[in-house]
Order: sequence, then structure tokens, then C-alpha cells
Amino acid sequence: MADAALLHASKRLTLPDPLPLDSGQSLAPVEIAYETYGELNADKSNAILVCHALTGDQFLASNHPITGKPGWWVRMVGPGKPIDTSRFHVICANVIGSCMGSTGPASLAVDGAPHAMRFPVITIRDMVRGLVAMLDALGIGSLHAVVGGSMGGMQALSFASHWPTRTRAALVIASAARQSAQNIAFHEVGRQAIMADPAWENGDYYASGKGPEKGLAVARMAAHITYLSEQAMHEKFGRRLQDRPDGTRGAKTFGFDADFQVESYLRHQGLAFTDRFDANSYLYITRAMDYFDLAEEHGGKLAAAFAGTRTRFCLVSFDTDWLYPTAESRSVVHALNAAGAAVSFVELSAPFGHDSFLLDVPALDRVVTGFLGADR
Amino acid sequence: MADAALLHASKRLTLPDPLPLDSGQSLAPVEIAYETYGELNADKSNAILVCHALTGDQFLASNHPITGKPGWWVRMVGPGKPIDTSRFHVICANVIGSCMGSTGPASLAVDGAPHAMRFPVITIRDMVRGLVAMLDALGIGSLHAVVGGSMGGMQALSFASHWPTRTRAALVIASAARQSAQNIAFHEVGRQAIMADPAWENGDYYASGKGPEKGLAVARMAAHITYLSEQAMHEKFGRRLQDRPDGTRGAKTFGFDADFQVESYLRHQGLAFTDRFDANSYLYITRAMDYFDLAEEHGGKLAAAFAGTRTRFCLVSFDTDWLYPTAESRSVVHALNAAGAAVSFVELSAPFGHDSFLLDVPALDRVVTGFLGADR
Repeated sequence: MADAALLHASKRLTLPDPLPLDSGQSLAPVEIAYETYGELNADKSNAILVCHALTGDQFLASNHPITGKPGWWVRMVGPGKPIDTSRFHVICANVIGSCMGSTGPASLAVDGAPHAMRFPVITIRDMVRGLVAMLDALGIGSLHAVVGGSMGGMQALSFASHWPTRTRAALVIASAARQSAQNIAFHEVGRQAIMADPAWENGDYYASGKGPEKGLAVARMAAHITYLSEQAMHEKFGRRLQDRPDGTRGAKTFGFDADFQVESYLRHQGLAFTDRFDANSYLYITRAMDYFDLAEEHGGKLAAAFAGTRTRFCLVSFDTDWLYPTAESRSVVHALNAAGAAVSFVELSAPFGHDSFLLDVPALDRVVTGFLGADR
Repeated sequence: MADAALLHASKRLTLPDPLPLDSGQSLAPVEIAYETYGELNADKSNAILVCHALTGDQFLASNHPITGKPGWWVRMVGPGKPIDTSRFHVICANVIGSCMGSTGPASLAVDGAPHAMRFPVITIRDMVRGLVAMLDALGIGSLHAVVGGSMGGMQALSFASHWPTRTRAALVIASAARQSAQNIAFHEVGRQAIMADPAWENGDYYASGKGPEKGLAVARMAAHITYLSEQAMHEKFGRRLQDRPDGTRGAKTFGFDADFQVESYLRHQGLAFTDRFDANSYLYITRAMDYFDLAEEHGGKLAAAFAGTRTRFCLVSFDTDWLYPTAESRSVVHALNAAGAAVSFVELSAPFGHDSFLLDVPALDRVVTGFLGADR
């Protein structure tokens, strides 16, 4: 964790009031780190809030301060792009519980020590409460749209459900109204991998300068498999062997080095992740996702989550996404229909699996452009 | 590992010759631990070799000596059952590299210390070489059939391909002729979880009396998800919460205990596995599976693996198996067709995912009964 690099990387605000949480606890002080792109118009009516995914951050369309890489949705957000910053004021904030400047387990508690595992368990709705409080502080009453993919889509659904007057539209991509048993299971594997690492130290690793990097890397490797389709993995790697550092062509070594390119790729993904992400944040955010069940928050009826809504919805799924498959989006659409809401829905064909929402899918660009421009 | 319990649990034989390996090394001495069920007839023509899966063993239809649980295929193997021991002499041997009595990493090398990571990397064909040498030692020339599910199916394919005169039939269930990129990826996550555990000690943990149990448990948890279908997980657990040890009904604890039943189940599966399985064996056997590519062993042409074969084949897949999906079986069938082999193929509908081959699927019983009895 390179906290120094983050200190001046983002806009920040401190929420004026303690943030009430679903657990019954409250969190204070709460800082929110955010980025904005494009100008806010005079009547503050052109704001779009983009919500990020599990390991995402506010660096939507600007370089990441640790990795130096371009923003994670730079292909979607910018002047003349589907989320057009020459027209819209785009806001993206780091969620609470995360580690890119907003208050999370690595942040200092009032006693001057990191929260670590004293950080309260939060929910998707708690994250959205933080975002709404940020919008309050920025003086933005109603959004043009709330937009998100994956966990960002959960936030968009939660936002539109619990704060229906605060957004005129919600765009939910590759997401679900509840976390499935299989997805809880994958998250639990990741958490157990982190907690099995002795360097986790029950979460109190911040002073050591070294966290549970091996456990976090394993968690990321397992998760990464779920972000790709089987077909994408086959086409990208197949059973191809890795060339050696000494330049020799790939061959089976009859050992435990990364013989296959897919092994090498996964190991790299795991290691690179530990440079930019806090293991405790991974625990808290996966837990928040696992707890997410929008129907449960409304007496078990998903349609009740959207009763009387005047927000326009657009749901998008991808045919190769097995983490948040089309059936999950469809059940949200059915609930919106039952609630009499305005909703459009499309399953797009794209080869990349769950990661399709981040990658080059021109059909998604067209859907986003059309939906966000529809009330012009 | 309860080696004492194993010592007298199985029949054992020591191979008379060193076993040549695909790596170019050879292994000696090699012990094979095996179980038999049903009588061998006078002309030794009624033997069926059952090959076990990754974490399986020879205790096909008798209680496991460590867990005390019934054999893993007791529903399939016995008098009057689909693999009818009143008619057939059924043999099941622990594969080399495993840990239930056959020579593996935990076995003592000639210097009196465990092989540990000095154990050579083996292949599926090496495992089958060990099985064929066992059949030689038992004086069994040609099998009525070789049968296996999952990794057992890989062995059955390898056996029928490389020793075509040694079996008259091959029954391959929920398997493939090569390990896919996605499956290599899941195995690599498991291996990294084991190797990330400091208790792994580069494989030299046998003297400590305690191995990388946490890492092995994480590996097992990740693998276990792949054995079930999403639908099976949903129906078995859904988002149901776990009742507490104190008897209180399930509720979200806003903590990191196993709130969800699926978490509790996975944790149990992980922990229970470490009581009966050796972590180094897990490394070696997953590696053998990842290396498996029967086409590659035949100049890249899978049909060449079966050229001129007179063995009858039966391939079975399950519609909910996403680890070894139907497409993998179908490509084997196409190759067998191209080779002019006698082959039947069926995709069965069963809700359990990959584990269907182990569970109550009456249609599978009928297929097995029919195929094994066809030359009566």
C-alpha cells in the first residue's frame, strides 16, 4: 500500500455526520475520496454517479496513482464517449471499506490506530449511504443517472431502490439483486485464503509493513478465474506453454514452475493485485456483496424494492458471464415489470465473460449511449 | 495423515521392476495398494479395473480406513449392482503419487526419508503404467473393462489408447482427453494455496507432524465449488443462514463467521479433507492432470490415439457438469468415430454438476449396467 501516493491523488471530503450502518453501528469520521470528469451545469442536473466494482476505485478515466495504468473505464467515459463528459458531470467515489482514500479498515480510527478488524461490517446499502451523503455535501439533489457494473450494479440497484427520488435513471450492467450461493462460496475461498496467511495477524498487519500478500494473491487468482469465460481462457491461453526467462521455447519442465501460460498469467494477476489492494478491504467488501439481497430488504419481494418508482432502468447482461448470468438480470427485470417501472433489458453477446463490462464490447457502448441520452 | 491405519488396510504388492516415467526418470521401489471385490474367474477374463479420481482411493466399495465412511462408489459396485461383483472381479488401486498406500511423495525413498518434493513429477500415463504393471503382477492379461470418472476417465482413456490389447472395453464418465485452461487455472490456485502456507516448508513437513493444513483446506474449498453445479449449490444452500452452535436461529452476525450455510459447508469440506489427504500428493496429482493431453501424445491428432483399436468405448457426460462439460466428451467421441472405433455416447441430465458420477443418478446405473453386460 502506497498511502503517500494517494494522499493528494483524489478530491476528498469528510462527511459532516456519522454514517449510520445496517449493522446498527455508525461510522465516524468518514472520508470519501472521489474523482469528477466534465463540468457540473448551473442547475446541477447533469451529474452521473458511476459506482465501482469490488476491486475498482474512483480512477475511472484518469491514471491510477499506484499502478500508473489508465482508468478502468476510460474507454467508456470521456468527451464524446458513451458517458460523455462534454455533456455530463461524472462522479466516481471510492466506496467506504475500500482502500483508495475513502474510510476503510486501513484508515486510522479515533484512537490513532488503524481500524483493522475493528472496522464495522458494512453492506452495499451502507456504501450507497456514503455516496448519497457525498452527493448531499456536493449539493447534488438528483442524478441524471446512477451507473455501475458488477458490485457497481448492486449499488445502482440499492441507490434506485432506497433513494428513488435521487436519480432519474439507473444503468445496471452484469450484476444481480442478490449474491448467489456459488458467488458467496468463491468469496469465502478468498477470505479463507487471506485469513490462513499467518501474515494476516488477525488483521493487525499495518505496522509490519507487510500484509498477507500470499493469501491475498491466492484470493485474487481464484476470483480472476470467475471473471473470464471458459471460452475466453481457452482462446487466450489454451494449453500453450510459457517461454522461459532464458529465452528457450515453452516445454513441460516436469516441475511446479508456471509451465502453462494460464498459470503464469494468474500468478501475475495475484501478485500485481497485492501492490494496490488492502487485504482487509477485500474481506469487508466481499462480505458486503455476500450480504446483498435487495428482496430481503423489502420483505422478501423484489418488486417491493421498486414500488412506485419513477426512475428509468436499463439492465445489461452478457451471454458468457457465469458469475452474474443473464438469469440474475432477468429476475430484476421481472420485478421492475411487476412494479410497473420503465425498464429496458438486453443480453449482449460478448466473449469475455463477466469482465465484458470493462472490455471492448461496441454493443455495450451503443446501449449506454442510447440509454443515457434518451431523455435529451 | 494416519499412516498406521493404512498399513494393514489394503492389499499391497511391490512392482518387480522400476517404473519408467514420461519425464525420463524412473521410480523404484513402487508399491501399489489395491482392493478387490468379487471372484476372479478361472481364465481371468472377468476383471474390471476401476480408476479413481483426484482425491479418490482404492476403497471403492469398502469403508475408508481413516474416515470410516462407506466406499466412494458403493452405490455402483457390489453384488447385483451395475458393476456386479457377483459376476465381475473388480480391482481398484491407489494411483502412484497418491497417499493411501501406493508410492507417493509421503513414501520413504531409498535413503529412508520421505520423497517429499524429490518425488518425480508424474503423468496420467505414468499412473496407468503402474496399474498395468500391477495387472501383470496379478497375471491378468486382458480386462473385461477399464472404468473411471473424472481423472479416472483420463486413466481409462490413456489405458485404452496405450495398452489397447489389455482391455476389451473402456467406460469414461465426466472426463476429457485433455485438461482445459480453466481447469489448469483452478488447479494452480489450489497449488498456490498449499505452497503459500509456511507449514508447507517446501514439502518437507512430514517430520513436523503437521502439514500445510490451512493451505490444503483452501485448495479443497476452491476445488469443491467446481464439483457442484450453480443450481445444485442454489438448491442445497441458497442464501440460507447457519444456525449457531448455541441453538439460536441463523442471522447475519455482521462478522466473518460462517453466516451462510454454504460457507459452513465449504469450511467443513476443507478441514475434513486435511485429515485424509497429503498436500504434496495434491500437488503431484493435479500436475499430472494438467499435463494430460492425449492428442499431444499422438502428434496432435486425438483420432491417432485410437487408431485400429478393437476396444469398445462408452462416454458419459452430465448436462450440469461445467468442469468436464459435454463438449469434452463429444470431442473424444468424434476422435473415436474418426478412428472407426465402436463407441456409444450419452449426455445424462442430472442436477449435481461434476459430482453426478458419484451420486444418485439412476440413468447412469442403467448405462453402466448395459455397457458392461453388452458382450455377455
